[in-house]
Amino acid sequence: MLNSPPLSPTATLLISCPDQRGLVAKFASFIYSNGGNIVHADQHTDFLAGLFLTRIEWQLEGFNLPREVIAPAFQAIAQPLNAQWQLHFSDSHPRIAVWVSRQDHCLFDLIWRQRAGEFAAEIPLILSNHPHLQTTAEQFGIAYHHVPITPHNKAEQEAKQLDLLKEYGIDLVVLAKYMQILSPNFVAQFSNIINIHHSFLPAFAGANPYQRAYERGVKIIGATAHYVTKDLDEGPIIEQDVVRVSHRDQVPDLIRKGKDLERMVLARAVRLHLQNRVLVYDNRTVVFE
Amino acid sequence: MLNSPPLSPTATLLISCPDQRGLVAKFASFIYSNGGNIVHADQHTDFLAGLFLTRIEWQLEGFNLPREVIAPAFQAIAQPLNAQWQLHFSDSHPRIAVWVSRQDHCLFDLIWRQRAGEFAAEIPLILSNHPHLQTTAEQFGIAYHHVPITPHNKAEQEAKQLDLLKEYGIDLVVLAKYMQILSPNFVAQFSNIINIHHSFLPAFAGANPYQRAYERGVKIIGATAHYVTKDLDEGPIIEQDVVRVSHRDQVPDLIRKGKDLERMVLARAVRLHLQNRVLVYDNRTVVFE
Amino acid sequence: MLNSPPLSPTATLLISCPDQRGLVAKFASFIYSNGGNIVHADQHTDFLAGLFLTRIEWQLEGFNLPREVIAPAFQAIAQPLNAQWQLHFSDSHPRIAVWVSRQDHCLFDLIWRQRAGEFAAEIPLILSNHPHLQTTAEQFGIAYHHVPITPHNKAEQEAKQLDLLKEYGIDLVVLAKYMQILSPNFVAQFSNIINIHHSFLPAFAGANPYQRAYERGVKIIGATAHYVTKDLDEGPIIEQDVVRVSHRDQVPDLIRKGKDLERMVLARAVRLHLQNRVLVYDNRTVVFE
Amino acid sequence: MLNSPPLSPTATLLISCPDQRGLVAKFASFIYSNGGNIVHADQHTDFLAGLFLTRIEWQLEGFNLPREVIAPAFQAIAQPLNAQWQLHFSDSHPRIAVWVSRQDHCLFDLIWRQRAGEFAAEIPLILSNHPHLQTTAEQFGIAYHHVPITPHNKAEQEAKQLDLLKEYGIDLVVLAKYMQILSPNFVAQFSNIINIHHSFLPAFAGANPYQRAYERGVKIIGATAHYVTKDLDEGPIIEQDVVRVSHRDQVPDLIRKGKDLERMVLARAVRLHLQNRVLVYDNRTVVFE
Repeated sequence: MLNSPPLSPTATLLISCPDQRGLVAKFASFIYSNGGNIVHADQHTDFLAGLFLTRIEWQLEGFNLPREVIAPAFQAIAQPLNAQWQLHFSDSHPRIAVWVSRQDHCLFDLIWRQRAGEFAAEIPLILSNHPHLQTTAEQFGIAYHHVPITPHNKAEQEAKQLDLLKEYGIDLVVLAKYMQILSPNFVAQFSNIINIHHSFLPAFAGANPYQRAYERGVKIIGATAHYVTKDLDEGPIIEQDVVRVSHRDQVPDLIRKGKDLERMVLARAVRLHLQNRVLVYDNRTVVFE
Repeated sequence: MLNSPPLSPTATLLISCPDQRGLVAKFASFIYSNGGNIVHADQHTDFLAGLFLTRIEWQLEGFNLPREVIAPAFQAIAQPLNAQWQLHFSDSHPRIAVWVSRQDHCLFDLIWRQRAGEFAAEIPLILSNHPHLQTTAEQFGIAYHHVPITPHNKAEQEAKQLDLLKEYGIDLVVLAKYMQILSPNFVAQFSNIINIHHSFLPAFAGANPYQRAYERGVKIIGATAHYVTKDLDEGPIIEQDVVRVSHRDQVPDLIRKGKDLERMVLARAVRLHLQNRVLVYDNRTVVFE
Repeated sequence: MLNSPPLSPTATLLISCPDQRGLVAKFASFIYSNGGNIVHADQHTDFLAGLFLTRIEWQLEGFNLPREVIAPAFQAIAQPLNAQWQLHFSDSHPRIAVWVSRQDHCLFDLIWRQRAGEFAAEIPLILSNHPHLQTTAEQFGIAYHHVPITPHNKAEQEAKQLDLLKEYGIDLVVLAKYMQILSPNFVAQFSNIINIHHSFLPAFAGANPYQRAYERGVKIIGATAHYVTKDLDEGPIIEQDVVRVSHRDQVPDLIRKGKDLERMVLARAVRLHLQNRVLVYDNRTVVFE
Repeated sequence: MLNSPPLSPTATLLISCPDQRGLVAKFASFIYSNGGNIVHADQHTDFLAGLFLTRIEWQLEGFNLPREVIAPAFQAIAQPLNAQWQLHFSDSHPRIAVWVSRQDHCLFDLIWRQRAGEFAAEIPLILSNHPHLQTTAEQFGIAYHHVPITPHNKAEQEAKQLDLLKEYGIDLVVLAKYMQILSPNFVAQFSNIINIHHSFLPAFAGANPYQRAYERGVKIIGATAHYVTKDLDEGPIIEQDVVRVSHRDQVPDLIRKGKDLERMVLARAVRLHLQNRVLVYDNRTVVFE
């Protein structure tokens, strides 16, 4: 295909380690000496934190190490450097569970993108605290589990949710306007979660951001996609975007405009994550675009 | 001149009043019956607040009422409607005092725009709590008054500042990165003040917004121009804008990018104010662009 | 419902007429003298063209004239002014035919918005020169007509298309990535057509805009929604938007990013049109937002 | 200084060469084996063109090779790879000549940024085909040469301009709204030239872009900074940006809004160039931000 990057499978290393001389040379030599062709490499040094972060992607075709040997071989290099790292293969497709409440705009958008080939991932499961979107799930042939949450059954229901994630072999949870708060206990047990918050964080963290944005009279509203941590709306930000509003926009207009933002921002964050372009440290993200 | 709006003087009415039927007709008839030609009219109704707001601009050429009669004539219409209103003439140029501390980017920008004819206003006075920008003031032939502020002399110095505003016949104060907080007492005595805050309010209100934006790991930073009220960073927002940042941007980069935002946002707000396009109610602005 | 504009039916007049004194007063008095409450009014004067354009929306509740009398009553005012005008009622929902080829992103988006209540319109018909999206149409219960076009059958097939528009009572055609050019003859017979062009017009008019944008090395790409006239890509522009690209973006990336632009821009244009906010003159639009 | 990148001098290599395995490793090893600490490295592969492009910046402190030896040492590596490359030192400040006609907004902006430390460069020379901005030059203590151009004296005057560039030791020419076209002969003799074009190229190339944008009724206008080549408005684009406009914006409004764009876009392009972040190939730029 014309103009597109090589479509043969690639491997990607995401590495963070204490900064020191020679890291780029060492990592690049590991790939090269084993016959690999680097197709993308990016790096960032946080001089204050003394931390070096890099993303290296190379073609598996022609690479001398079998897939199962790459990790142990690289660990021999990484250990003396105190490096933390992840290894991903472009042809292994993560399995996503989309969690929703009653709103369907982000869900629809994620499904459309997955079908259109924008996400190298599968969406085998939709999970909701409401029954409303069951027919949408059926329309696209995706399993739908209704797990209602009350103030009294949360712990029990979260156990059920964790079971479902295990049952469906889920790698990533996407909270696509899921209007319940996950307990710290849940997050401790399943940590790969992306949420879309309907404001330009840290402005209007918490509930009813559009109402509060209206009351404050802001001229721009935003949306924020972030990893979920035990502290609500405080996780590492992956992506944000904004749109102008005016005095003519009432709260329902902010909600409508915000929906477009929410689905764009969430989709971009999910895509960046799936392409292994996001590294987290110190509650911040490095996004290797 | 080709393609430009009529350059003959215009009058502008800014009106807010309890909503009721016939307001547009009444105000338009006042202009028309006196021979006026409306060149711009805009309106907004806040149905929740039950408030009607409008801006009407018409050519003075051919208008039958002498300037000094317009106000009393309109008051006869406005009073029974419980309307609040202001009348402005496009050829009367407000006098601006620009207040600065040590940073000069907004000051330079405001002076350049005034010289370039973007502002229908004069800038006869620069006021600062530091001596640093005196030579810049001299370079452009603008009076510069250095009024240093300490924790102990604030009340006294604010009295001096008020005297200077009176002495120079100032209509509008623009805080162009003036890093002192005005007392409620000062604001009570001179209320026509626009400030530029170096964040996307309400995010990062208060001190050191760029440092805090860096620490939070936001992907977008902003600036906010607002009218000054007695509550710091809480006044009605006139204009905001944002710019993308990434993990590569350290605090000095945020400051540099922010400076461009600050001068753009402040300039737009000052221009909108000078064109009498901003109406305030309920700590919000209606901006008739 | 809190914070939303009045939901009772409204009437909207879109008027353009030679500029002269008293137009605002005349039109407003027509509404007021018949007991109407104006909820929105906006106007624009093109001084070069000597043209006055306005949009006036008022509540039908309490208006003394029956619906069928409004048009003749207003014509009595409009005729001596040489005004051209349209009258719309907010509770009459236009019928849209969406035309597609093989790409489904704009179609999906339009259907989702219609279902979500963002468009006060119906979508009873999808028309395509390809069979591919038939199942999508069925999924949403919308009639799908496949009208294949060859270089030899165009005139004949356009006749068929016109018949279908008539049969389904279509008010508005939306070309949602329909990759055929309509003949001047077709446009002469059905003129209410909105198209989405996948570039920032007038840059890259014609075919393959993303390939050409890549080759030129632009740093920003765009999309343009416009009314269709007999001259390809030359019709009045309703809405445009852009997104940044970099050297990392190959043509498939431009296409992917462009799809998001296309659906946003097309949706905004359709919405503005459906709310009767767009007036055309001199191959330009006035958009009363 | 907190949060800022290392301020000790760095060296930067900009390299483009035919793509092949091991390039990253070879270049990184050159730095590392000589004791260098890479502070930034970025790369791009154009798979269609078979070209690898990279920017590597490392600290000179602790680097074993003396400055004058770096180039010949690297050439030994580059030659067998058929690589083209440039070497820059962060503490050597290029000398800029700003060329203007009558408009001063870009000039003012460039001077302010240079004074504020945003540009690691000197501005010893302003060159104009008009006398108007002489006093501005004097105000900032910069030499001003007035070189008027007529249809008949162009070749002769370009010879004079080239002499001035030589006399002042100019490394970079910035056309800051210089409204004359440089001859291919001039560009052949001095090729390091950045121009700001007052449109979103390739839309409205050539003269009067704002007038033509108005006539076409676009909803967004732009500005483009590009390197100058012998083909007018066809050189490699470094940076572009846009701003929304509406039917309310007449040509003078487009010009005013465009001025803000022009100075922002030009400043960003000059800064990227001065930081050696721009590589050109095939009439396109790779910008390593």
